[in-house]
Amino acid sequence: MAVYTDVSDEDLAKFIALYDIGSLKSFKGIAEGVSNSNFLAETEAGRFILTLYEARTETAELPFFIALMEHLAKKGINCPQPILQRNGQALSELAGKPAALLSYLDGISLKKPTSSHCMEAGEALAKLHLAGQDFIMQRKNDLSVAGWKKLFTQAEAGAKAETDANSVQRDLRVFIADELTFLHENWPKNLPTGIIHADLFPDNVFFLNDKLSGLIDFYFACTDILAYDLAICLNAWVFETDGSFNVTKARSLLAGYQHIRPLSIDERDALPILVRGAALRFLLTRLVDWLNVPAGALVKPHDPLVFYKRLRFHQTLTSPSDLGLDL
Amino acid sequence: MAVYTDVSDEDLAKFIALYDIGSLKSFKGIAEGVSNSNFLAETEAGRFILTLYEARTETAELPFFIALMEHLAKKGINCPQPILQRNGQALSELAGKPAALLSYLDGISLKKPTSSHCMEAGEALAKLHLAGQDFIMQRKNDLSVAGWKKLFTQAEAGAKAETDANSVQRDLRVFIADELTFLHENWPKNLPTGIIHADLFPDNVFFLNDKLSGLIDFYFACTDILAYDLAICLNAWVFETDGSFNVTKARSLLAGYQHIRPLSIDERDALPILVRGAALRFLLTRLVDWLNVPAGALVKPHDPLVFYKRLRFHQTLTSPSDLGLDL
Repeated sequence: MAVYTDVSDEDLAKFIALYDIGSLKSFKGIAEGVSNSNFLAETEAGRFILTLYEARTETAELPFFIALMEHLAKKGINCPQPILQRNGQALSELAGKPAALLSYLDGISLKKPTSSHCMEAGEALAKLHLAGQDFIMQRKNDLSVAGWKKLFTQAEAGAKAETDANSVQRDLRVFIADELTFLHENWPKNLPTGIIHADLFPDNVFFLNDKLSGLIDFYFACTDILAYDLAICLNAWVFETDGSFNVTKARSLLAGYQHIRPLSIDERDALPILVRGAALRFLLTRLVDWLNVPAGALVKPHDPLVFYKRLRFHQTLTSPSDLGLDL
Repeated sequence: MAVYTDVSDEDLAKFIALYDIGSLKSFKGIAEGVSNSNFLAETEAGRFILTLYEARTETAELPFFIALMEHLAKKGINCPQPILQRNGQALSELAGKPAALLSYLDGISLKKPTSSHCMEAGEALAKLHLAGQDFIMQRKNDLSVAGWKKLFTQAEAGAKAETDANSVQRDLRVFIADELTFLHENWPKNLPTGIIHADLFPDNVFFLNDKLSGLIDFYFACTDILAYDLAICLNAWVFETDGSFNVTKARSLLAGYQHIRPLSIDERDALPILVRGAALRFLLTRLVDWLNVPAGALVKPHDPLVFYKRLRFHQTLTSPSDLGLDL
């Protein structure tokens, strides 16, 4: 849920006038996206999503995201499309922050996807990976193995003395430190890389009449190991609310992915490590948010322990087949 | 901003199927309304607002609000209209809470209304008062003079020892206690009553192409002194962000109101007391929210001191003409 910035009447009218879309008929803050403020803006020309990029999104990286969404849309991926201003630019400023107007996608994100939704998500992820292969821009993933130690320090730095990681879960500090060491030593090298979404949770996938209709929120997209993106999806889609791993859903997600892009032997072998890394990444970013939530924040931080439990599960894996991969 | 309750996929689909509006195309939590959760639901039949009534709204009172919106719409007031289910009912349940589907109104609420917007707001308020005159249901105003003492106790009861009213502003306890005594002794009797909106702030008034197009959020509506509603609007519309009283805007608001419904001598004379009461009412409810904000709340409480300052201004009034009323 995200509306962090109030927009004045004058600034809004000026912003809308940059586009050839008529005058505003409706404007509402919406609970979509986490890092940025999002508004539903309706004009005589239709509906749009107005995104206001907050501090967490680096301004210098916005052209990458904008170009990526344009590229993917051209390749047939249904994702938000930047709307161009009269001057041909997609990026502008609103309330002192970078802002863009994006096309509106119909569809509903699911709270509790079924196996068949998981299969479609797997297919969509693989299509995204293929569509990204000839995208010429690159973006380093700050939230992969090289960045996790910094994240951990950051979580604790912002925390008050009595609210360090151990206040969330006893022995969490040691647990994370050990896992960091393990992953640094065992992180796979030489796997195929490319554009990954890096945050394809169910809330970023739209369905219409039970068929996958579109993908949103590309602001974590970057260049990284493709199978790591699949590992993120496994963490995001196939655990039940009680914390259990649903192997049927995992099989569907993996099968969907491999219908479009079969995994290499190396990618399959690496999957048990990659899912640990993906779980640690979300454990760490949630820990940062949890221990650093500003007073008066409009956002309720996600519980970091959900990913602690998922990581504990992944630590018990003895083979990729435990994840539902047919060998 | 308000989305307090998560709605499951199954519950949502079941709820939508109660209505003859086709299947869901889009569903987003929106930052509208304060007491309830609001979602923008789009189906094949168009757009709707789905309101989920949270604890703060008494379930027993919902039929009053629903009937009032139906009545006002029939009288030509552009306000949300309850959509009827196939069984003819407007109220149902979703995620264990009462819920209703309402018509969607185009329009934008203004952050900084001008004098001409204030005039239109005054006119709309008077039209609302006239349209409500033959509404047969009644609802007591719990947030008027008889309820303020309880509100004050409530604010302090929920507060921790170190965060009572004085922690917000030095001597605020004594200030409020004195004002309560004054208002109890001087509150006007025998002024015309009827349906009042009781919360007609700029965020509850929509404009389209700079003309007032509709009113929303009737969940504080009740039966009370009509001129008290005007006093609420004076508090809500004519103070600048720096705290100053804009007498030009006040004149416009009052003139707009009197174009449609001229005030009696008694109502004019009572206005300086009524604006004090209205300021105290919002000071108190904001104080309750400020001192009782739950951990992890998605809502940033409004600053109570804004209304402390407005009340201090009203205490200096020597005549209704100080408020911009032509005598």
